[in-house]
Amino acid sequence: MNFCSQCGAEVIFKVPAEDNRPRHICIRCDAIYYVNPKIVTGCIVEWEGKILLCKRAIEPRYGFWTLPAGFIEIGETTVQAALRETLEEANATVDIIDLYLVINLPYVDQVYMIYRSRLAKMEFSPGSESLEVKLYKEEEIPWDTLAFPTIRETLLYYFRDKADGRFLFRTGDIIKENNQFIFHPGPGVMGV
Amino acid sequence: MNFCSQCGAEVIFKVPAEDNRPRHICIRCDAIYYVNPKIVTGCIVEWEGKILLCKRAIEPRYGFWTLPAGFIEIGETTVQAALRETLEEANATVDIIDLYLVINLPYVDQVYMIYRSRLAKMEFSPGSESLEVKLYKEEEIPWDTLAFPTIRETLLYYFRDKADGRFLFRTGDIIKENNQFIFHPGPGVMGV
Repeated sequence: MNFCSQCGAEVIFKVPAEDNRPRHICIRCDAIYYVNPKIVTGCIVEWEGKILLCKRAIEPRYGFWTLPAGFIEIGETTVQAALRETLEEANATVDIIDLYLVINLPYVDQVYMIYRSRLAKMEFSPGSESLEVKLYKEEEIPWDTLAFPTIRETLLYYFRDKADGRFLFRTGDIIKENNQFIFHPGPGVMGV
Repeated sequence: MNFCSQCGAEVIFKVPAEDNRPRHICIRCDAIYYVNPKIVTGCIVEWEGKILLCKRAIEPRYGFWTLPAGFIEIGETTVQAALRETLEEANATVDIIDLYLVINLPYVDQVYMIYRSRLAKMEFSPGSESLEVKLYKEEEIPWDTLAFPTIRETLLYYFRDKADGRFLFRTGDIIKENNQFIFHPGPGVMGV
Protein backbone atom coordinates (compact mmCIF):
# COMPACT_ATOMS: atom_id res chain seq x y z
CA MET A 1 0.00 0.00 0.00
CA ASN A 2 1.45 3.36 -1.11
CA PHE A 3 -1.42 5.85 -1.21
CA CYS A 4 -4.48 6.72 0.87
CA SER A 5 -7.55 5.37 -0.90
CA GLN A 6 -9.66 8.20 0.56
CA CYS A 7 -7.62 11.35 -0.24
CA GLY A 8 -4.79 10.08 -2.48
CA ALA A 9 -1.91 11.29 -0.23
CA GLU A 10 0.99 9.05 0.76
CA VAL A 11 0.72 6.57 3.62
CA ILE A 12 3.27 5.60 6.22
CA PHE A 13 3.47 2.30 8.08
CA LYS A 14 3.55 2.82 11.84
CA VAL A 15 1.75 1.96 15.06
CA PRO A 16 -1.28 4.26 15.51
CA ALA A 17 -1.99 5.89 18.88
CA GLU A 18 -3.59 3.42 21.33
CA ASP A 19 -2.76 0.47 19.07
CA ASN A 20 0.00 -2.13 19.33
CA ARG A 21 0.80 -3.08 15.74
CA PRO A 22 1.76 -1.10 12.65
CA ARG A 23 -0.90 -0.05 10.11
CA HIS A 24 -0.83 2.05 6.98
CA ILE A 25 -1.82 5.60 8.00
CA CYS A 26 -2.45 8.56 5.69
CA ILE A 27 -0.01 11.46 6.27
CA ARG A 28 -2.71 13.98 5.26
CA CYS A 29 -6.13 12.80 6.47
CA ASP A 30 -4.95 10.32 9.18
CA ALA A 31 -7.09 7.46 7.79
CA ILE A 32 -5.93 4.15 9.28
CA TYR A 33 -6.04 1.01 7.13
CA TYR A 34 -6.78 -2.30 8.86
CA VAL A 35 -6.15 -5.55 7.00
CA ASN A 36 -7.59 -8.78 8.38
CA PRO A 37 -7.82 -12.46 7.42
CA LYS A 38 -10.66 -13.50 5.13
CA ILE A 39 -13.17 -16.32 5.27
CA VAL A 40 -13.39 -19.00 2.58
CA THR A 41 -16.58 -21.00 2.86
CA GLY A 42 -18.16 -23.80 0.88
CA CYS A 43 -19.86 -27.18 0.93
CA ILE A 44 -19.10 -30.84 1.12
CA VAL A 45 -21.99 -32.05 -1.06
CA GLU A 46 -23.32 -35.57 -0.51
CA TRP A 47 -25.46 -37.66 -2.85
CA GLU A 48 -26.14 -41.34 -2.23
CA GLY A 49 -22.84 -41.90 -0.42
CA LYS A 50 -20.82 -39.92 -2.96
CA ILE A 51 -19.12 -36.52 -2.69
CA LEU A 52 -19.15 -33.75 -5.32
CA LEU A 53 -15.74 -32.50 -6.44
CA CYS A 54 -14.93 -29.71 -8.93
CA LYS A 55 -11.89 -29.67 -11.23
CA ARG A 56 -10.51 -26.13 -11.14
CA ALA A 57 -10.61 -24.06 -14.35
CA ILE A 58 -8.69 -21.21 -12.68
CA GLU A 59 -5.35 -20.60 -11.02
CA PRO A 60 -4.07 -21.38 -8.48
CA ARG A 61 -4.14 -25.18 -8.90
CA TYR A 62 -5.71 -25.25 -12.36
CA GLY A 63 -6.82 -28.82 -13.15
CA PHE A 64 -6.81 -30.00 -9.52
CA TRP A 65 -9.90 -31.16 -7.62
CA THR A 66 -11.59 -29.10 -4.94
CA LEU A 67 -14.79 -28.63 -2.98
CA PRO A 68 -17.03 -25.77 -4.14
CA ALA A 69 -15.90 -22.85 -1.95
CA GLY A 70 -14.81 -19.23 -2.08
CA PHE A 71 -14.60 -15.90 -0.29
CA ILE A 72 -17.64 -14.63 1.61
CA GLU A 73 -18.78 -11.31 0.12
CA ILE A 74 -20.00 -8.11 1.79
CA GLY A 75 -23.62 -8.46 2.95
CA GLU A 76 -23.59 -12.27 2.98
CA THR A 77 -23.75 -14.81 5.77
CA THR A 78 -21.38 -17.78 5.63
CA VAL A 79 -24.34 -20.02 4.72
CA GLN A 80 -25.38 -17.73 1.86
CA ALA A 81 -21.79 -17.63 0.60
CA ALA A 82 -21.42 -21.42 0.75
CA LEU A 83 -24.68 -21.88 -1.18
CA ARG A 84 -23.67 -19.26 -3.77
CA GLU A 85 -20.24 -20.78 -4.33
CA THR A 86 -21.77 -24.25 -4.76
CA LEU A 87 -24.22 -22.86 -7.30
CA GLU A 88 -21.53 -20.86 -9.16
CA GLU A 89 -18.90 -23.59 -9.34
CA ALA A 90 -21.05 -26.70 -9.72
CA ASN A 91 -24.50 -25.41 -10.77
CA ALA A 92 -25.72 -27.42 -7.79
CA THR A 93 -28.53 -26.51 -5.41
CA VAL A 94 -28.01 -28.05 -1.97
CA ASP A 95 -29.68 -28.31 1.42
CA ILE A 96 -27.29 -27.37 4.23
CA ILE A 97 -27.05 -29.91 7.08
CA ASP A 98 -24.63 -28.17 9.47
CA LEU A 99 -21.31 -26.36 9.84
CA TYR A 100 -18.84 -29.24 9.84
CA LEU A 101 -15.34 -27.82 9.95
CA VAL A 102 -13.39 -24.60 10.68
CA ILE A 103 -9.67 -24.58 9.80
CA ASN A 104 -7.27 -21.66 10.19
CA LEU A 105 -4.81 -21.12 7.33
CA PRO A 106 -2.54 -18.39 8.73
CA TYR A 107 0.01 -18.81 5.88
CA VAL A 108 -2.58 -17.30 3.51
CA ASP A 109 -4.53 -15.33 6.15
CA GLN A 110 -7.71 -17.31 5.60
CA VAL A 111 -10.21 -19.09 7.80
CA TYR A 112 -11.85 -21.98 5.99
CA MET A 113 -15.43 -23.01 6.92
CA ILE A 114 -17.13 -26.03 5.35
CA TYR A 115 -20.81 -26.98 5.62
CA ARG A 116 -22.14 -30.49 5.15
CA SER A 117 -24.94 -30.51 2.58
CA ARG A 118 -26.99 -32.73 0.28
CA LEU A 119 -27.94 -32.18 -3.35
CA ALA A 120 -31.50 -30.82 -3.35
CA LYS A 121 -31.94 -32.51 -6.73
CA MET A 122 -29.66 -34.73 -8.82
CA GLU A 123 -28.41 -31.90 -11.06
CA PHE A 124 -24.95 -30.38 -11.42
CA SER A 125 -22.57 -29.24 -14.15
CA PRO A 126 -19.35 -27.21 -14.42
CA GLY A 127 -19.68 -23.50 -13.63
CA SER A 128 -17.32 -20.98 -15.22
CA GLU A 129 -14.55 -21.71 -12.66
CA SER A 130 -14.75 -25.51 -13.12
CA LEU A 131 -13.57 -27.79 -15.93
CA GLU A 132 -15.53 -30.77 -14.65
CA VAL A 133 -17.84 -31.64 -11.74
CA LYS A 134 -18.15 -35.23 -10.61
CA LEU A 135 -19.59 -37.37 -7.79
CA TYR A 136 -16.91 -39.56 -6.21
CA LYS A 137 -17.19 -42.65 -4.06
CA GLU A 138 -14.69 -42.79 -1.21
CA GLU A 139 -12.50 -45.34 -2.99
CA GLU A 140 -12.41 -43.14 -6.13
CA ILE A 141 -11.29 -39.86 -4.44
CA PRO A 142 -8.30 -38.46 -6.41
CA TRP A 143 -6.11 -37.97 -3.31
CA ASP A 144 -3.02 -37.18 -5.40
CA THR A 145 -4.65 -34.40 -7.38
CA LEU A 146 -6.57 -32.51 -4.69
CA ALA A 147 -6.09 -28.74 -4.98
CA PHE A 148 -5.35 -27.74 -1.37
CA PRO A 149 -4.37 -29.27 2.00
CA THR A 150 -7.76 -28.12 3.39
CA ILE A 151 -9.59 -30.35 0.92
CA ARG A 152 -7.54 -33.36 2.00
CA GLU A 153 -8.15 -32.72 5.73
CA THR A 154 -11.87 -32.14 5.16
CA LEU A 155 -12.29 -35.38 3.21
CA LEU A 156 -10.18 -37.39 5.69
CA TYR A 157 -12.40 -36.22 8.57
CA TYR A 158 -15.56 -36.72 6.56
CA PHE A 159 -14.90 -40.34 5.64
CA ARG A 160 -13.59 -41.16 9.14
CA ASP A 161 -16.72 -39.68 10.75
CA LYS A 162 -18.93 -41.39 8.19
CA ALA A 163 -17.36 -44.77 9.01
CA ASP A 164 -17.96 -44.05 12.70
CA GLY A 165 -21.65 -43.37 11.98
CA ARG A 166 -21.69 -39.79 13.32
CA PHE A 167 -20.26 -36.40 12.37
CA LEU A 168 -18.49 -34.24 14.97
CA PHE A 169 -17.73 -30.56 14.56
CA ARG A 170 -14.06 -30.33 13.55
CA THR A 171 -11.55 -27.51 14.02
CA GLY A 172 -7.83 -27.05 13.54
CA ASP A 173 -4.99 -25.13 11.94
CA ILE A 174 -2.88 -25.90 8.91
CA ILE A 175 0.61 -24.48 9.47
CA LYS A 176 3.22 -24.17 6.72
CA GLU A 177 6.58 -25.39 8.01
CA ASN A 178 9.65 -25.88 5.77
CA ASN A 179 7.36 -25.78 2.73
CA GLN A 180 5.21 -28.57 4.17
CA PHE A 181 1.63 -28.22 5.39
CA ILE A 182 1.14 -29.62 8.89
CA PHE A 183 -2.37 -30.08 10.29
CA HIS A 184 -2.92 -29.44 14.01
CA PRO A 185 -6.38 -30.54 15.17
CA GLY A 186 -8.49 -28.86 17.81
CA PRO A 187 -8.89 -27.42 20.35
CA GLY A 188 -11.74 -29.59 21.60
CA VAL A 189 -14.17 -31.86 19.84
CA MET A 190 -17.81 -31.20 20.61
CA GLY A 191 -19.87 -34.17 21.67
CA VAL A 192 -16.93 -36.33 22.71
CA MET B 1 -12.74 4.49 -1.88
CA ASN B 2 -11.55 7.17 -4.30
CA PHE B 3 -7.93 6.39 -5.19
CA CYS B 4 -5.82 3.32 -6.00
CA SER B 5 -3.70 2.51 -2.96
CA GLN B 6 -0.98 1.07 -5.22
CA CYS B 7 -0.46 3.82 -7.85
CA GLY B 8 -2.58 6.73 -6.57
CA ALA B 9 -4.77 7.07 -9.69
CA GLU B 10 -8.57 7.27 -9.50
CA VAL B 11 -10.71 4.17 -9.13
CA ILE B 12 -14.05 3.37 -10.70
CA PHE B 13 -16.71 1.04 -9.29
CA LYS B 14 -17.69 -1.61 -11.82
CA VAL B 15 -17.91 -5.35 -12.39
CA PRO B 16 -14.47 -6.73 -13.38
CA ALA B 17 -14.12 -9.18 -16.29
CA GLU B 18 -15.17 -12.71 -15.24
CA ASP B 19 -16.71 -11.44 -12.01
CA ASN B 20 -20.36 -10.85 -11.10
CA ARG B 21 -20.30 -7.98 -8.64
CA PRO B 22 -18.89 -4.46 -8.72
CA ARG B 23 -15.45 -3.73 -7.20
CA HIS B 24 -13.26 -0.66 -7.07
CA ILE B 25 -10.82 -0.89 -10.01
CA CYS B 26 -7.89 1.41 -10.76
CA ILE B 27 -8.26 3.27 -14.09
CA ARG B 28 -4.46 3.27 -14.56
CA CYS B 29 -2.97 0.02 -13.21
CA ASP B 30 -6.17 -2.12 -13.23
CA ALA B 31 -5.73 -3.18 -9.58
CA ILE B 32 -8.99 -4.67 -8.27
CA TYR B 33 -9.99 -4.08 -4.63
CA TYR B 34 -11.92 -6.82 -2.86
CA VAL B 35 -13.63 -6.09 0.43
CA ASN B 36 -14.87 -8.96 2.59
CA PRO B 37 -16.48 -9.52 5.99
CA LYS B 38 -14.19 -9.73 9.01
CA ILE B 39 -13.94 -12.17 11.90
CA VAL B 40 -14.42 -11.09 15.49
CA THR B 41 -13.26 -13.75 17.92
CA GLY B 42 -13.02 -14.03 21.68
CA CYS B 43 -13.68 -16.10 24.77
CA ILE B 44 -16.41 -16.94 27.19
CA VAL B 45 -14.21 -17.33 30.28
CA GLU B 46 -15.40 -19.60 33.09
CA TRP B 47 -14.22 -19.70 36.68
CA GLU B 48 -16.00 -21.72 39.38
CA GLY B 49 -19.39 -21.37 37.68
CA LYS B 50 -18.96 -17.67 36.94
CA ILE B 51 -18.37 -15.83 33.64
CA LEU B 52 -15.91 -13.00 33.03
CA LEU B 53 -17.39 -9.80 31.59
CA CYS B 54 -15.59 -6.58 30.60
CA LYS B 55 -17.10 -3.09 30.86
CA ARG B 56 -16.13 -1.26 27.67
CA ALA B 57 -13.83 1.76 27.94
CA ILE B 58 -14.20 2.47 24.20
CA GLU B 59 -16.91 3.32 21.71
CA PRO B 60 -19.15 1.88 20.44
CA ARG B 61 -21.11 0.98 23.56
CA TYR B 62 -18.84 2.67 26.09
CA GLY B 63 -19.79 1.51 29.61
CA PHE B 64 -21.66 -1.59 28.48
CA TRP B 65 -20.65 -5.17 29.31
CA THR B 66 -19.07 -7.51 26.80
CA LEU B 67 -17.03 -10.68 26.40
CA PRO B 68 -13.33 -10.18 25.63
CA ALA B 69 -13.24 -10.29 21.79
CA GLY B 70 -11.95 -8.42 18.76
CA PHE B 71 -10.80 -8.63 15.16
CA ILE B 72 -8.41 -11.39 14.15
CA GLU B 73 -5.17 -9.87 12.82
CA ILE B 74 -2.97 -10.85 9.87
CA GLY B 75 -0.84 -13.91 10.69
CA GLU B 76 -3.04 -15.10 13.54
CA THR B 77 -5.30 -18.11 13.95
CA THR B 78 -8.72 -17.57 15.51
CA VAL B 79 -7.48 -19.28 18.69
CA GLN B 80 -4.45 -16.99 18.92
CA ALA B 81 -6.66 -13.94 18.35
CA ALA B 82 -9.17 -15.04 21.02
CA LEU B 83 -6.34 -15.58 23.53
CA ARG B 84 -4.74 -12.23 22.67
CA GLU B 85 -8.02 -10.31 23.00
CA THR B 86 -8.70 -11.94 26.37
CA LEU B 87 -5.24 -10.98 27.57
CA GLU B 88 -5.49 -7.41 26.21
CA GLU B 89 -8.97 -6.62 27.50
CA ALA B 90 -9.01 -8.53 30.78
CA ASN B 91 -5.34 -9.29 31.54
CA ALA B 92 -6.54 -12.88 31.80
CA THR B 93 -4.70 -16.02 30.69
CA VAL B 94 -7.09 -18.81 29.76
CA ASP B 95 -7.11 -22.42 28.61
CA ILE B 96 -9.28 -22.89 25.52
CA ILE B 97 -11.86 -25.71 25.76
CA ASP B 98 -13.47 -25.61 22.30
CA LEU B 99 -15.05 -23.42 19.63
CA TYR B 100 -18.55 -22.92 21.00
CA LEU B 101 -20.42 -20.56 18.71
CA VAL B 102 -20.30 -18.99 15.21
CA ILE B 103 -22.80 -16.19 14.46
CA ASN B 104 -23.06 -14.20 11.23
CA LEU B 105 -23.66 -10.45 11.61
CA PRO B 106 -24.27 -9.37 8.00
CA TYR B 107 -25.48 -5.88 9.08
CA VAL B 108 -21.90 -5.07 10.13
CA ASP B 109 -20.16 -7.58 7.80
CA GLN B 110 -18.73 -9.60 10.66
CA VAL B 111 -18.59 -13.25 11.59
CA TYR B 112 -18.42 -13.74 15.35
CA MET B 113 -16.62 -16.80 16.78
CA ILE B 114 -16.54 -17.53 20.50
CA TYR B 115 -14.40 -20.13 22.29
CA ARG B 116 -15.24 -21.64 25.67
CA SER B 117 -12.30 -21.28 28.05
CA ARG B 118 -11.28 -21.39 31.71
CA LEU B 119 -9.06 -19.01 33.63
CA ALA B 120 -5.60 -20.61 33.79
CA LYS B 121 -5.13 -18.83 37.11
CA MET B 122 -7.42 -16.63 39.20
CA GLU B 123 -6.00 -13.34 37.92
CA PHE B 124 -7.62 -10.60 35.83
CA SER B 125 -7.86 -6.82 35.70
CA PRO B 126 -9.04 -4.15 33.25
CA GLY B 127 -6.93 -3.77 30.10
CA SER B 128 -6.75 -0.43 28.30
CA GLU B 129 -10.08 -1.03 26.51
CA SER B 130 -11.96 -1.98 29.71
CA LEU B 131 -13.23 0.12 32.63
CA GLU B 132 -13.87 -2.91 34.81
CA VAL B 133 -13.59 -6.70 34.62
CA LYS B 134 -15.78 -8.88 36.79
CA LEU B 135 -16.84 -12.50 37.31
CA TYR B 136 -20.62 -12.86 37.19
CA LYS B 137 -22.89 -15.64 38.44
CA GLU B 138 -25.79 -16.43 36.09
CA GLU B 139 -28.30 -14.60 38.30
CA GLU B 140 -26.08 -11.50 38.38
CA ILE B 141 -25.61 -11.10 34.59
CA PRO B 142 -26.41 -7.46 33.64
CA TRP B 143 -28.79 -8.41 30.79
CA ASP B 144 -29.99 -4.80 30.34
CA THR B 145 -26.51 -3.35 29.89
CA LEU B 146 -24.87 -5.91 27.59
CA ALA B 147 -22.98 -4.24 24.73
CA PHE B 148 -24.15 -6.25 21.70
CA PRO B 149 -26.87 -8.72 20.66
CA THR B 150 -24.14 -11.35 20.11
CA ILE B 151 -23.21 -11.21 23.80
CA ARG B 152 -26.82 -11.81 24.81
CA GLU B 153 -27.22 -14.79 22.43
CA THR B 154 -23.91 -16.31 23.54
CA LEU B 155 -24.79 -16.07 27.22
CA LEU B 156 -28.35 -17.39 26.66
CA TYR B 157 -26.97 -20.47 24.87
CA TYR B 158 -24.22 -20.91 27.42
CA PHE B 159 -26.47 -20.97 30.48
CA ARG B 160 -29.08 -23.13 28.69
CA ASP B 161 -26.40 -25.67 27.71
CA LYS B 162 -24.87 -25.55 31.17
CA ALA B 163 -28.26 -26.31 32.75
CA ASP B 164 -28.61 -29.24 30.33
CA GLY B 165 -25.23 -30.57 31.45
CA ARG B 166 -23.59 -30.50 27.99
CA PHE B 167 -22.40 -27.90 25.48
CA LEU B 168 -23.36 -28.20 21.80
CA PHE B 169 -21.68 -26.29 18.98
CA ARG B 170 -24.00 -23.34 18.16
CA THR B 171 -24.44 -21.38 14.95
CA GLY B 172 -26.83 -18.75 13.64
CA ASP B 173 -27.35 -15.32 12.13
CA ILE B 174 -28.36 -12.04 13.73
CA ILE B 175 -30.36 -10.04 11.18
CA LYS B 176 -31.23 -6.37 11.63
CA GLU B 177 -34.87 -5.80 10.71
CA ASN B 178 -36.70 -2.50 11.33
CA ASN B 179 -33.94 -1.47 13.73
CA GLN B 180 -34.38 -4.68 15.75
CA PHE B 181 -31.90 -7.54 15.96
CA ILE B 182 -33.49 -10.91 15.23
CA PHE B 183 -31.57 -14.13 15.95
CA HIS B 184 -32.03 -17.06 13.56
CA PRO B 185 -30.44 -20.26 14.89
CA GLY B 186 -28.79 -22.96 12.81
CA PRO B 187 -28.49 -24.66 10.45
CA GLY B 188 -27.95 -27.91 12.30
CA VAL B 189 -26.86 -28.69 15.82
CA MET B 190 -23.99 -31.16 16.09
CA GLY B 191 -24.44 -34.05 18.42
CA VAL B 192 -28.26 -33.89 18.58
